[in-house]
Amino acid sequence: MIVYVNGEFTKAEDAKISVLDRGFVFGDGVYEVWRVVEGKLFEHARHDRRLKRGLKTLEIAFADKDVEALADVAQRLLKDNNMLSGEGTFYVEITRGAAPRTHAYPPAGTKPTVLAMVSKFEVPHAVREAGAKAITDADVRWLRCDVKTVQLLPNVMAKQKAAAAGAMEAIFIRDGIVTEGTHTSVLGVKNGTLLTHPLGPLILPSVTRELILEVARELNVPVSEKPFTKDEMFALDELFVSGTTTDVTPIVDVDGRKIGSGRPGPVSKKLYAGLQARLYKGATQLS
Amino acid sequence: MIVYVNGEFTKAEDAKISVLDRGFVFGDGVYEVWRVVEGKLFEHARHDRRLKRGLKTLEIAFADKDVEALADVAQRLLKDNNMLSGEGTFYVEITRGAAPRTHAYPPAGTKPTVLAMVSKFEVPHAVREAGAKAITDADVRWLRCDVKTVQLLPNVMAKQKAAAAGAMEAIFIRDGIVTEGTHTSVLGVKNGTLLTHPLGPLILPSVTRELILEVARELNVPVSEKPFTKDEMFALDELFVSGTTTDVTPIVDVDGRKIGSGRPGPVSKKLYAGLQARLYKGATQLS
Repeated sequence: MIVYVNGEFTKAEDAKISVLDRGFVFGDGVYEVWRVVEGKLFEHARHDRRLKRGLKTLEIAFADKDVEALADVAQRLLKDNNMLSGEGTFYVEITRGAAPRTHAYPPAGTKPTVLAMVSKFEVPHAVREAGAKAITDADVRWLRCDVKTVQLLPNVMAKQKAAAAGAMEAIFIRDGIVTEGTHTSVLGVKNGTLLTHPLGPLILPSVTRELILEVARELNVPVSEKPFTKDEMFALDELFVSGTTTDVTPIVDVDGRKIGSGRPGPVSKKLYAGLQARLYKGATQLS
Repeated sequence: MIVYVNGEFTKAEDAKISVLDRGFVFGDGVYEVWRVVEGKLFEHARHDRRLKRGLKTLEIAFADKDVEALADVAQRLLKDNNMLSGEGTFYVEITRGAAPRTHAYPPAGTKPTVLAMVSKFEVPHAVREAGAKAITDADVRWLRCDVKTVQLLPNVMAKQKAAAAGAMEAIFIRDGIVTEGTHTSVLGVKNGTLLTHPLGPLILPSVTRELILEVARELNVPVSEKPFTKDEMFALDELFVSGTTTDVTPIVDVDGRKIGSGRPGPVSKKLYAGLQARLYKGATQLS
């Protein structure tokens, strides 16, 4: 695999960063993941926008035009890794760079570190058709989950608990409320209405969540962006998680308890179809 | 500067880790900082204990005996960097290692990444004699602050705010309560009693805090490990922050408001003297 680090294209095994990188010693960086379909980045501009916002929030000096130029890096990586067909992801991480270890920001002029890489992705059709299992776990994350940073240890630990339980995802519960998954948004359907946690500091402003809400409105599915509790989750007609690679993945079992009919529901299926229409049409139209 | 990375001693500028290191992409690691006095590690065993506990909490496969063996790495680094006299710090970070990026833990056998380095340290006597300024900031950190992980972005951002305000530290406030500083514990004195936040998930089990509480008990200073509010902080007779390199640093101004007399108080001075007695006696007795 060829990856990109600080201006160089190199084999993954040779791709190194300084031990003093602030990403490594402080988790002081942001990242972004784009879906790749047939060599094109899906909803490129929305992901760019989120990355730009994250860089501004952290005050990392990385210009908007340099974010936009990452599309060229993606094209080169997709070509060099024989990924111009099929599906994949494009990952970018930008940290505050390498500097002697001290908490406050390093001097102006310290060059941010940029890592970019692509991965192949196989859509797990069988899982989506059958529905997946999830567990719940306490949401102990920091209170700026709206910024896509590498402060991901709680996500890692919860996802590991899910994996150990044979589940696809862990759903976070904070103060009795369902927030989101470790790397997904959580959405439910009750009496025909699509429910999901409102935007704010407790969840990521997910691009896929945004797309699904647009699709729902197009399909005249009522949308309610209000928090629901863990108890209310167990009484939903349908539950699903969404994300850049998760699309719409129905959840039919949480903590060993059946959700709704125990099978993917009609609203989830309809929304997934609508998302797929954008995904496979959209990707080939964008660069 | 010579540093240690994964078994090798090398120049800092040549010290690199994989871009796939989970410390870099997830903040999936723990760290520890020991104070060095005249080539010896101060309170070596207490820091080892905390590091071992952190590794166990994160389920990083790094044996207790390998933690203990880091003392030999410290000795070699101190020698190679001409730091066998004077003061300094010994820093160790251990992450879950490098692996293809996916949240759940990588396969058993993935080798943890180990970085160790030393830095010279000059005790800022003038600041401690005059007292320092602090600001307050919202404590938005995750709810496992009792584990010394590299999930440090909120600490970094708050410390930067302090630096921009010309302050030495930012004091975190959660739900109206003083928790700790970005890299220090926060302690106060009211009517002769030493006050500080109790141990638990909201603060680091600081070695220096523990030592100061021991010194206080030796000196018959009453200790109350109960939370105090931001308002109560402004009404304290004395306020100070503590830590491995901070020792006892009196805080005489918070958010531009004078604390107590506006000068370091007698209890703070007494505790600092007691800590120094241990520091300069203890270090030369330990290896």
